[in-house]
Amino acid sequence: MILHLRGVYAPIVTPFDGDGIDVAGLVSNLERYSRTGLAGVVVLGSNSEAPLLDDEESAQVVETARRVVRLPQLLIAGTGRESTRATIQATRRAASAGADAVLVRTPSFFRAHMSADHYVAHYEAVADASPVPVLLYNVSVFTGVTLPIDAFARLAAHPTIIGIKESGPDLEVLAQYIAHAPAGFAVLGGAHATLYPAVCIGARGGVLAAAGVIPELCATLFDHAASGRHDEALALQRRIDPFCELAASRFGVAGLKAAAAVAGYAAGPPRPPLLPASADTLALIRHEYEALQAST
Amino acid sequence: MILHLRGVYAPIVTPFDGDGIDVAGLVSNLERYSRTGLAGVVVLGSNSEAPLLDDEESAQVVETARRVVRLPQLLIAGTGRESTRATIQATRRAASAGADAVLVRTPSFFRAHMSADHYVAHYEAVADASPVPVLLYNVSVFTGVTLPIDAFARLAAHPTIIGIKESGPDLEVLAQYIAHAPAGFAVLGGAHATLYPAVCIGARGGVLAAAGVIPELCATLFDHAASGRHDEALALQRRIDPFCELAASRFGVAGLKAAAAVAGYAAGPPRPPLLPASADTLALIRHEYEALQAST
Amino acid sequence: MILHLRGVYAPIVTPFDGDGIDVAGLVSNLERYSRTGLAGVVVLGSNSEAPLLDDEESAQVVETARRVVRLPQLLIAGTGRESTRATIQATRRAASAGADAVLVRTPSFFRAHMSADHYVAHYEAVADASPVPVLLYNVSVFTGVTLPIDAFARLAAHPTIIGIKESGPDLEVLAQYIAHAPAGFAVLGGAHATLYPAVCIGARGGVLAAAGVIPELCATLFDHAASGRHDEALALQRRIDPFCELAASRFGVAGLKAAAAVAGYAAGPPRPPLLPASADTLALIRHEYEALQAST
Amino acid sequence: MILHLRGVYAPIVTPFDGDGIDVAGLVSNLERYSRTGLAGVVVLGSNSEAPLLDDEESAQVVETARRVVRLPQLLIAGTGRESTRATIQATRRAASAGADAVLVRTPSFFRAHMSADHYVAHYEAVADASPVPVLLYNVSVFTGVTLPIDAFARLAAHPTIIGIKESGPDLEVLAQYIAHAPAGFAVLGGAHATLYPAVCIGARGGVLAAAGVIPELCATLFDHAASGRHDEALALQRRIDPFCELAASRFGVAGLKAAAAVAGYAAGPPRPPLLPASADTLALIRHEYEALQAST
Repeated sequence: MILHLRGVYAPIVTPFDGDGIDVAGLVSNLERYSRTGLAGVVVLGSNSEAPLLDDEESAQVVETARRVVRLPQLLIAGTGRESTRATIQATRRAASAGADAVLVRTPSFFRAHMSADHYVAHYEAVADASPVPVLLYNVSVFTGVTLPIDAFARLAAHPTIIGIKESGPDLEVLAQYIAHAPAGFAVLGGAHATLYPAVCIGARGGVLAAAGVIPELCATLFDHAASGRHDEALALQRRIDPFCELAASRFGVAGLKAAAAVAGYAAGPPRPPLLPASADTLALIRHEYEALQAST
Repeated sequence: MILHLRGVYAPIVTPFDGDGIDVAGLVSNLERYSRTGLAGVVVLGSNSEAPLLDDEESAQVVETARRVVRLPQLLIAGTGRESTRATIQATRRAASAGADAVLVRTPSFFRAHMSADHYVAHYEAVADASPVPVLLYNVSVFTGVTLPIDAFARLAAHPTIIGIKESGPDLEVLAQYIAHAPAGFAVLGGAHATLYPAVCIGARGGVLAAAGVIPELCATLFDHAASGRHDEALALQRRIDPFCELAASRFGVAGLKAAAAVAGYAAGPPRPPLLPASADTLALIRHEYEALQAST
Repeated sequence: MILHLRGVYAPIVTPFDGDGIDVAGLVSNLERYSRTGLAGVVVLGSNSEAPLLDDEESAQVVETARRVVRLPQLLIAGTGRESTRATIQATRRAASAGADAVLVRTPSFFRAHMSADHYVAHYEAVADASPVPVLLYNVSVFTGVTLPIDAFARLAAHPTIIGIKESGPDLEVLAQYIAHAPAGFAVLGGAHATLYPAVCIGARGGVLAAAGVIPELCATLFDHAASGRHDEALALQRRIDPFCELAASRFGVAGLKAAAAVAGYAAGPPRPPLLPASADTLALIRHEYEALQAST
Repeated sequence: MILHLRGVYAPIVTPFDGDGIDVAGLVSNLERYSRTGLAGVVVLGSNSEAPLLDDEESAQVVETARRVVRLPQLLIAGTGRESTRATIQATRRAASAGADAVLVRTPSFFRAHMSADHYVAHYEAVADASPVPVLLYNVSVFTGVTLPIDAFARLAAHPTIIGIKESGPDLEVLAQYIAHAPAGFAVLGGAHATLYPAVCIGARGGVLAAAGVIPELCATLFDHAASGRHDEALALQRRIDPFCELAASRFGVAGLKAAAAVAGYAAGPPRPPLLPASADTLALIRHEYEALQAST
């Protein structure tokens, strides 16, 4: 299958139930997303608390999602680990469980002693071994790593590597990736606040935490932008920004899960060492959510 | 005079001749800019090596520029200093010498112990004392400071503060400033690589070092973007990016002065502790300049 | 057992053999360490590439070490993970396998959204669940986290938490921990270059990567410092510094494994994405090692 | 005159009176310091708010100090500016006004584009032109710059450059400077919290903001350390640390001036954009000062 990534993907929260995955909640969330304009979902991303899940739970999430997510929506699974070997194993497990593609964040623990050569060797080994298409993934707020442009250019030429999620709001970085990517390669933004301008400069879409809370608004924003309806795009971007800043940025996973719950999705608390949003934070998010719904 | 800032402003290099200002070169550069589509020039900016000039030289630059720069082009002078008092004095001197407005970078030496309150008090004092309109100025690559959004919102309401230059490529920051600015307030971008998307989200123009080297291309890019000619804007943005990255980013002032010289402007070497571009850097810049001219 | 930590502990490399642990090499290394003045060894630390090992390999390392390491030398195992739950599981496994104590690095992936409360809750949960004494562990070069002093003070009072390894060379941080620790609590330094002055201000020893390469010199340096032989301590500190900078700092794990090999220890290459030291680096390390041996 | 720097130097506050220098207060402070064990004073340092003074005020400070400070105490003046030329001018003015030596902080505004070569050329030009001995000065909390070790080694060989003030608490940096300095070169620490261990590893003294508030305690601490009275040194270091952290670190210049006032020195408020310490901060500092006086 050749994947043409385009549109908005939601990196969804992992709902917990007691000490494990809330499978029923996960299914219910995915069914609800299936009735939206989302281009797909990402499970096991940073905002899914992937670093806090064990391998068994990770497999359970992909398998569960695979039973619900149907084309044209894609199922993408995060499989980045610190070692190349564990990343390859996680990638193969996700592919076996039915993921359409994998999203592989940069290793980061040893970043102080890693250079472009390390990242290239790592991703080439993963891509060579992966049964499914691979997306690169910069999330420097968590990893402290942004793939150097020369490493990116070498990797973007690999036939199995079909895209990148760049999570930050620095559009110069995004533009450089776009300039150095081959035809058909998908550069996706990860910052809700810059979705519209990112599409203006050639991004093929976004992987937006906020899209797990307000999927239709995010999908519509992309459609406006991609269809050249600039006035509508800018107006909608501005309309959702204040809520997204609270739901998908300021408070991290705790805020995202609180926002998801406010919007009626199964979420539950984050897993320790993360702590649930405070009552004040929850009230703030609820207030902004209601204001967003009331606006037009 | 009510100033409506809009378009591209060039923060021009300060040409040196032996140990002082090359006044003839400065005049010649400004006359050449006067025949372009630039909305104005900024003298005494970061890329003008303002922190390396003394007060007499600074006055000489503004006075010289005032004799050449004519409406509709505006003359803006950088007047930021570390103390509030010196900033006010520099602002008054620049206004006396004829500057249409002043651009005041954040103080930064004591940033480790400064909060929003410090910045607000500083800028309010400067604005209260300034005979001419004031622009705020973030240039965190040099200062390590980005005005917090709450400080910005309070300052943007001041009647004398009419705009901000935000130098970085982070469009989320730019969008937040735009969202919190009153009507008529001008948010200007300072990163050449994001001029087009910045205009898409509401920036009123840019203060671009590259505009001192390729003024027409930068002015045309703004016109395309501001007029809704998105395809032309994106194509031109991409066309100039590689040259701008060399001329106005990677090598700092040394690279900018080398690029200005290649384009036929008076520049001279930077002032120590800055050192001139190496022969290799100069050749690289010349090569990319010629490639840009040859492209269409 | 009440543990009184004192002296130099070596956070040893994990020797690889083909695709797995070189158990014979590990045993041989540990036997050699047993004939030195080291106070103990740390397995599964950062420089042991712990983030690149799987759970089975981790267990194998602890079990192997337990068969060799004998009192008065202690066996300490790194068990930090991103989730509290996985950290507790790893801690229990290490304790079952015979570790005398565990060294638990701060979780770090979600550091952007974590505060003192998160760290306190995390470590208290781990300590409450741990069958063996717990050491806190700051390694900000890798994690970007330094435990805030108020979090440290609350944790140092926990009966199961008996010490901290602070890896950085900032002696103000070390002094603050010492000032806020209860009697009997062991603050250990992790930077070879500051072992002598750290002991001067009250550190009870060090966990030094270099001690896995030149154990006797490190142990002797501690003895000089702890016994008040200041001239000898300073002279020896200066004598080992140039080698340690190469072996245990500049080149990361790759340099440490190269240095260990030069000194006759089983090491093998690091695991990808880490890459082996270049031939030039290896030659540099070998040269400095020989110079160190030749000096007196 | 050959200067042998040794002991504790106080980088004193600049007392303001209305809109200018409080000359009488400055004289009174200096007379009081003259009756202490301080090895000298530094005027126009970072904590003297040098970046907030104009040239005339700077001259006034040096001239005033020269009338009071007498051998064996030395008068050192801060003369660092952003341009090499202005630094040379300030250095010559300070020497004319009678400074025994100058302390020249690294230029920093253009640090993003400066390398070891820039710093070497800058300091060599300053040293070649200086009529008096020169001290290098790293204060990375404000400048973001730490002189690379290779630049330091080249500069330390210059006959006019006799020492360095390294402001940070990283003793590995200090040790590297000491290891690469020629005989007779003075490495001075700038962090109160690490004075004792810095002397242990070979620092010849300190330039400590806290020494302007509690000069005798700081001078005694140095004497203990330099004379090998380690127990007394450590005890005194610990005794002063909590007060010094408040007076000379946490609250910046505002805290230092508040502490100086509490101790009976002329200080006045800091100059804007700095703001005076809050009433709460002042009370906290006063409380800790009294606790320090009450302790033994």
